[in-house]
Amino acid sequence: MQNATTPPLRVIQVGLGPIGQKTVAYVAERDGVELVAAVDIDPAKAGQDAGTLAGIAGLGVKVNPDLQAGLQVPADVVLLTTGSKFAGVVPQLEACLAAGKPVVSTCEELAFPFAAEPELAARVDALARQAGVAVLGTGVNPGFLMDALPLFLTSVCRKVDAVRVERWQDAAIRRLPFQQKIGAGLSPAAFADQVRAGIIKHVGFAQSIQMIAGALGWRLDRVEDEVLPVVATEPVSSQFLRVEAGQCAGVHQTGRGFCGDRQVITLELQAYLGHPAPHDAVIIHGDPDVHSTIAGGVNGDIATCSMVLNALKSVRRAAPGLRTMADVPLTHWYVR
Amino acid sequence: MQNATTPPLRVIQVGLGPIGQKTVAYVAERDGVELVAAVDIDPAKAGQDAGTLAGIAGLGVKVNPDLQAGLQVPADVVLLTTGSKFAGVVPQLEACLAAGKPVVSTCEELAFPFAAEPELAARVDALARQAGVAVLGTGVNPGFLMDALPLFLTSVCRKVDAVRVERWQDAAIRRLPFQQKIGAGLSPAAFADQVRAGIIKHVGFAQSIQMIAGALGWRLDRVEDEVLPVVATEPVSSQFLRVEAGQCAGVHQTGRGFCGDRQVITLELQAYLGHPAPHDAVIIHGDPDVHSTIAGGVNGDIATCSMVLNALKSVRRAAPGLRTMADVPLTHWYVR
Repeated sequence: MQNATTPPLRVIQVGLGPIGQKTVAYVAERDGVELVAAVDIDPAKAGQDAGTLAGIAGLGVKVNPDLQAGLQVPADVVLLTTGSKFAGVVPQLEACLAAGKPVVSTCEELAFPFAAEPELAARVDALARQAGVAVLGTGVNPGFLMDALPLFLTSVCRKVDAVRVERWQDAAIRRLPFQQKIGAGLSPAAFADQVRAGIIKHVGFAQSIQMIAGALGWRLDRVEDEVLPVVATEPVSSQFLRVEAGQCAGVHQTGRGFCGDRQVITLELQAYLGHPAPHDAVIIHGDPDVHSTIAGGVNGDIATCSMVLNALKSVRRAAPGLRTMADVPLTHWYVR
Repeated sequence: MQNATTPPLRVIQVGLGPIGQKTVAYVAERDGVELVAAVDIDPAKAGQDAGTLAGIAGLGVKVNPDLQAGLQVPADVVLLTTGSKFAGVVPQLEACLAAGKPVVSTCEELAFPFAAEPELAARVDALARQAGVAVLGTGVNPGFLMDALPLFLTSVCRKVDAVRVERWQDAAIRRLPFQQKIGAGLSPAAFADQVRAGIIKHVGFAQSIQMIAGALGWRLDRVEDEVLPVVATEPVSSQFLRVEAGQCAGVHQTGRGFCGDRQVITLELQAYLGHPAPHDAVIIHGDPDVHSTIAGGVNGDIATCSMVLNALKSVRRAAPGLRTMADVPLTHWYVR
């Protein structure tokens, strides 16, 4: 089934935190991609085998603490998994582009930085065009479920009035860090504190909303991002923790985009222990209405790392510049 | 909500049969596109207003029977809806490319012509590259539901073992010509005759299967396309006709792609009067499995014409050459 004549894509992995390590493991298991260099500034990781660090067999690729040096390795694309903030990854993007390498990144704010940070986005775009390569921020969310997939589904529509996306998850089957991240087990007061501190919040709603609006040609007058607790009405447990009635079982976050007073984009994340109806749904109000559901929802851990690997081919074929999932060639899995 | 600074896309419509007429009506109602010329070789249509012919208000664009002349009008893209056969539309594509115009077409075989007619495809590809524009075959099916959408859904997968797509339709709510096209009301013997004559058959399964396989990197050893009747076990009626028990209520067509003996791609069209569970579904077997369903299914009449209009921007941004939905920038609806 494989096209053995196509050489594998040579990948430089930059950032070896949990996502970067998982990405290395996915690169290693795939036939069509090959890890040729790995970079992380953490001195404790320097010199370790990237595979060993990722919990798999050694790959013969030592972690380099120096980005510039790592980028000198001949490669087809850089996979950047260092942070969520656009401004934070810009120096790294500049280094990649100076080395003439296209970039795929899980940086959430890079998924659509044009609305929040237009000048910085323009600078990266100009550098990418100069370098003749593309830069893409992607992942499962932002990057797919709540922006690119709903956009693609509008293809069959004669007109679109509003877009609603639901990501409803039963957190009981997820890892403990995820359950903690959504505030499971907190009192409502402690939950509110963590929301105020910005600890409990999915990053990416603003980007997904602006990506949808930008592609559809809607000028938004206002964007909201509301984070509320889901309070348990009876005790609920996971493998890791038990939530009593009156405590928080998780989060209910809603992103809204308005044209005037009309709410045209709604993104709703419900993630709590014991969610009775987990799914990913896209509801397009238009002609025709489209109501699409992924049964059970997409596993976020597998999907984010898969997404960036699957985007490698698209970013190499994309027009040079700072790109989004709304303007690169269709991403998909591939053998090689 | 509209970006009034972007000029509308100027469209030349070539082919004014039922699909072409509907496309003209959709162009007329949309803010971001504008009909600038219309071509049909039928002498009976020559000189008529394209809008009037399409059953809407006059647009001030007269139907030109001469393709070469029509293509001289300054325009951004040609919308070609003249036929289903790739070889049949090639001379028209050549004329469009000689005029330097990108093309979006509903020609089913153009959705993925590389497997069945590689030499002709290479010729069109070379001409398009010379002209510096892209050519794209699209529509709801082939072009979206049974190829591009399942491909896009594989983006979240770490591995893909098999792809299954279901398009199950209740034909009772469709137009009479559709009900006739799927053999409703025929005896099983008459149905078999029409299958043998190639009258009852959805065109596009082979293209969709090859598009999926080509993008995923699967080398298929065999492709099947089986057309069977759905025989009514009790009487069933539509607004237009009544099917007795023992007569055909519609069609059950299955396309299959094999790697060796392994059936890796399955496309299943069920279209009959009284289908109890109409839907469009994509089932990806892999890691993770993905089971996505569009409730009730997508209305094919609206969707095909919407799809081609929504693809106009993608084809203009695509790399020059003969493109498919698997390699143009994401299509989506847009205001303008």
